[in-house]
Amino acid sequence: MKEHILPKGFLASGIHCGIKKKRKDLSLFYSEKACKVAALFTRNTVKAAPVLLAREQLKKGGYVRAVVVNSGNANCMTGRGGMRDAKRMARGVAKLLCIPHREALVSSTGIIGKPMVMKPIMDGMAVLVAGLSTRGLIDAAEGIMTTDRFTKIVCRTFTVGGKKIIMTGIAKGAGMVKPDMATVLCYILTDASISQEAIKRALSSSIDVSLNAITVDGDMSTNDTMMLLANGEAGNRLIREKGKDFELFRKNLEIVSRDLAGMIVRDGEGASKVIKVRVKGARTGSDAKKVAGTVANSLLVKCAVLGGDPNWGRIASSAGASGVVFDPGKMQIILDGITFFKRGRAVSSVTRKTASVFKGRDVRIEVDLHSGKGEASVLSCDISKKYITLNSHYTT
Amino acid sequence: MKEHILPKGFLASGIHCGIKKKRKDLSLFYSEKACKVAALFTRNTVKAAPVLLAREQLKKGGYVRAVVVNSGNANCMTGRGGMRDAKRMARGVAKLLCIPHREALVSSTGIIGKPMVMKPIMDGMAVLVAGLSTRGLIDAAEGIMTTDRFTKIVCRTFTVGGKKIIMTGIAKGAGMVKPDMATVLCYILTDASISQEAIKRALSSSIDVSLNAITVDGDMSTNDTMMLLANGEAGNRLIREKGKDFELFRKNLEIVSRDLAGMIVRDGEGASKVIKVRVKGARTGSDAKKVAGTVANSLLVKCAVLGGDPNWGRIASSAGASGVVFDPGKMQIILDGITFFKRGRAVSSVTRKTASVFKGRDVRIEVDLHSGKGEASVLSCDISKKYITLNSHYTT
Repeated sequence: MKEHILPKGFLASGIHCGIKKKRKDLSLFYSEKACKVAALFTRNTVKAAPVLLAREQLKKGGYVRAVVVNSGNANCMTGRGGMRDAKRMARGVAKLLCIPHREALVSSTGIIGKPMVMKPIMDGMAVLVAGLSTRGLIDAAEGIMTTDRFTKIVCRTFTVGGKKIIMTGIAKGAGMVKPDMATVLCYILTDASISQEAIKRALSSSIDVSLNAITVDGDMSTNDTMMLLANGEAGNRLIREKGKDFELFRKNLEIVSRDLAGMIVRDGEGASKVIKVRVKGARTGSDAKKVAGTVANSLLVKCAVLGGDPNWGRIASSAGASGVVFDPGKMQIILDGITFFKRGRAVSSVTRKTASVFKGRDVRIEVDLHSGKGEASVLSCDISKKYITLNSHYTT
Repeated sequence: MKEHILPKGFLASGIHCGIKKKRKDLSLFYSEKACKVAALFTRNTVKAAPVLLAREQLKKGGYVRAVVVNSGNANCMTGRGGMRDAKRMARGVAKLLCIPHREALVSSTGIIGKPMVMKPIMDGMAVLVAGLSTRGLIDAAEGIMTTDRFTKIVCRTFTVGGKKIIMTGIAKGAGMVKPDMATVLCYILTDASISQEAIKRALSSSIDVSLNAITVDGDMSTNDTMMLLANGEAGNRLIREKGKDFELFRKNLEIVSRDLAGMIVRDGEGASKVIKVRVKGARTGSDAKKVAGTVANSLLVKCAVLGGDPNWGRIASSAGASGVVFDPGKMQIILDGITFFKRGRAVSSVTRKTASVFKGRDVRIEVDLHSGKGEASVLSCDISKKYITLNSHYTT
């Protein structure tokens, strides 16, 4: 396993404060210097209080020094009290860190509709701040976990004008919290020096191929948050929104986010296999994305993958159900490298090879519509009885 | 149980011809007099050959005398050969019945992508025609079944100008065929005398509240077909596209289709409970439909219902994920008659009553957005481990 380190000037910590029974439930990411920041939030009409608050804080622009995250309670559908609690968290941690409170952001993940119990959090934040350390990364990654089976950390280094830059991403997965909701939280920290324009552009361009290109169960969360914080401590020449430096930064950010996205799918609740859906030959990229998304979300396709059944008719049917118009006669369906349908007919000569299809830990579904140059990929996972067990238990 | 009869002038039969191992797999509906017809087909881009053929036949207008239906093979993604086979079925049955072949329609349901084996069908059609009878309704309803656990027949009578009219609907459910696809086939036969305009209008208006308002797993089939055949044998005054007679006809058609739709959901694969999702107070009817559809299809909501868990946060989250913009603070969430969220906050006083919520055979989810007059209802069902067992087995 590669070493996971925080970028220069960043500290982190994670503790158990008492929202959950036993596991860590409160984390802090802190930068000694003010960070440029870019952030993306859920498009769900129902947004958690910390999401609303962070959007408000970032609307005015400005810098960020700290992000405090709790797991176990989403602070969503909690009305005015929820917003008050989110603000208390931001102000509380800012005060302890002696920074302006608008430089502290909050995220929450967990059960929807349950009022926050603030005492353990307010008490815990003092411990959190006291425990800040350059070696606190794993603790912090643990503190944001819900039903995740493993921590999700990706670390990369690259060089801009002779200066080494570190980029570290931390995420929590699309599992259901005590089985209540699907949430993705993702924080990417870097010591790169980068312009405000460039940091925003880089984040937007990386999300389409990473967190927006995965699905576990098609349910959109109320708390999704992705943040990119850059404190400039690497001392590199400023990365602007164009050119070689930007491309390098963007490429590394894309890899970090894509790797985190892959880990999230791998850790999908009850999932046993990762499904890579690739659509090409669509008339447009948007068409390709629609087809890939519909196939990736199809319950019948997920069941077929679980059962190791190369049931390509379901893939044809769900591609057609995407709303995209194409000629089914031109469609080609390739499962784990073996063509099952081509030029209007089933390819029966390969049936003897099909015993291996959908049997691996990673499976590939490729659909070529042979009608243009539009391409898209979506990562998904199979659905198992465990998913249903996890998500049908009484919790509220 | 009410008596199920065919309308005047209609005959039916159903047999086992050999597509499936044991159960009936070939059915015929026949009218002694030519019928006016209206039909609706799947909007899937991938359409089965019989759907393409029937659309073509009906495009030219004209009358229909017979519909032959096979189960066990969908005749979909079968290329030119599939179209040839569908035509052979239409011509074959027409010849045996001594009617023009354009007056015979074909439907198929079953596995996608498997070539038809025509000999048992061609041989079977002679037996089918010989067996036509006024008492053949149940046999015919059995012949179109796939994984359905029970036949779906609804029969109603009403009077237009002193003449008794019979309307009989037969459907096969949204189960997965040997677990390959979700298909709805629905035939409604009536002896009413009705104009061409009126029959089309009546069918279109009834589908939105029946077959288009149900979901089992969100997978759209390649073979969906709904047909309304009217032979005029009741001898009533012609029902035109407006007025009291039309309203009466439309109302009865709506009840028949709605009852069939309800049976289909009740018989959803592995389903144990029917979920009635009702959304009101949306700005528009279309908004209400989007919200209801997203809630009805949410895997997390289905899991909560299965587990008897009144996890209303999931309903809020999936309503918000529908893409419809509303004020979450105004949203009211009522489960089995008990309000869980209202005026921006959880209603905790009712928690002691919640033990009964989601425990019945039918459960109700009501969402009131308190923002307008848009309303919509969708019927759904829970998801169980049995669904996954049924749909993950190797079949192709």
